[in-house]
Amino acid sequence: MSGVEDLMTRLELLSLQDRYVAAIDNDRIEEWPGFFTEDCLYEIVSRENEEAGLPAPVIHCDNGRMLRDRVVALRHANIYEKPAYRHMLSGMEWREEADGSYAISTSYVVVNTSQEGESRIYQAGRYLDRVVRTEAGLRFREKRCIYDTLRVQTLLAFPI
Amino acid sequence: MSGVEDLMTRLELLSLQDRYVAAIDNDRIEEWPGFFTEDCLYEIVSRENEEAGLPAPVIHCDNGRMLRDRVVALRHANIYEKPAYRHMLSGMEWREEADGSYAISTSYVVVNTSQEGESRIYQAGRYLDRVVRTEAGLRFREKRCIYDTLRVQTLLAFPI
Amino acid sequence: MSGVEDLMTRLELLSLQDRYVAAIDNDRIEEWPGFFTEDCLYEIVSRENEEAGLPAPVIHCDNGRMLRDRVVALRHANIYEKPAYRHMLSGMEWREEADGSYAISTSYVVVNTSQEGESRIYQAGRYLDRVVRTEAGLRFREKRCIYDTLRVQTLLAFPI
Repeated sequence: MSGVEDLMTRLELLSLQDRYVAAIDNDRIEEWPGFFTEDCLYEIVSRENEEAGLPAPVIHCDNGRMLRDRVVALRHANIYEKPAYRHMLSGMEWREEADGSYAISTSYVVVNTSQEGESRIYQAGRYLDRVVRTEAGLRFREKRCIYDTLRVQTLLAFPI
Repeated sequence: MSGVEDLMTRLELLSLQDRYVAAIDNDRIEEWPGFFTEDCLYEIVSRENEEAGLPAPVIHCDNGRMLRDRVVALRHANIYEKPAYRHMLSGMEWREEADGSYAISTSYVVVNTSQEGESRIYQAGRYLDRVVRTEAGLRFREKRCIYDTLRVQTLLAFPI
Repeated sequence: MSGVEDLMTRLELLSLQDRYVAAIDNDRIEEWPGFFTEDCLYEIVSRENEEAGLPAPVIHCDNGRMLRDRVVALRHANIYEKPAYRHMLSGMEWREEADGSYAISTSYVVVNTSQEGESRIYQAGRYLDRVVRTEAGLRFREKRCIYDTLRVQTLLAFPI
């Protein structure tokens, strides 16, 4: 970010991130696909693989239909334990790209509470996002979740 | 939230939440009742009970005197271990209600450090707040702490 | 903070804190000294010592050269395990001092992920900062990290 930061754009991007995690954490995952453009990329990849240039994401969706299918699958699946996430966010950095989109990096720590009521850190990492301005507001064209934490992913993982 | 968000109101509400948790975390609980209107509701209730429509809060205060009494009790109590909290906040959503008040939801994770110096997640959950604009600034008319985490509450619990 | 808060100054200070922790968390510690004025104070001290008026910091740097030396040492050291931090921030309070600088308090929780991929709370505490406006933007003249958590510090500690 060179020169003087546009603080109102920062605030708008922070609001997008806050509303995104709120939809997940407050059990409204039906809203989750609506944060993306129809042509999009969503993936979850380990930091180790990312840094080695070997993405091999544990989750990879590249259009809105895949995101919506995932929501349906999650709602109808017989999941032994539904997650109760709280996403904490911090350290947002952003810059405007030549095409007018925003490249964003944000650290996250996801705390999960088990049905027995024990809260633990489930995943730490960072979002690498690309955000575009649409008629309906800001949307993710890309959201890549690069996780630091190694944890066996459940078969039908909830979105991060 | 429909239409374009009023980002300055968001920032003002984030500031209120930040100053509220700072007063608790920095051992100035005498300031805590001042964040509320005199006629107010403060309660701590489990998510399980909240979702079942059976509130049964572990703490319930419905006026400023009860909040002030609680502060006096906490300061004079012989508490074996005084908490050292750090409230992390995220995922704020808000909307303006017909009466001009603000309905807010904010995720929180409270980290507690024991006197032996071990930091653990004490409670995760969310605030469901109702905020009003007074001559002295924004105040909570309601703050309901809906916790995900099951943990035996100490008899004289500190505010969340 | 008396009277009406200058929300844009708050936002600017939040941005500074976010960019500061992002540089550390995203492995760009070479940028770390650049967040400070050349004549500066950086220290890490326990809450217990701070409250007893016996600072005895575990780390103390009082100029930019010391910060830069630390970065070089960290990069060249044979550290058994490089930290993977995620700093979560919350509860920012600030006021403008008579000399035009800003006195800031911000709670932090640092999550560290080990090379085995386990994420744990490494340190909770708060920053007590003094920030000044320079031609190049806001800079820390002082950053004091007052930690709640007792944990054996590694010999060559990474910045908090």
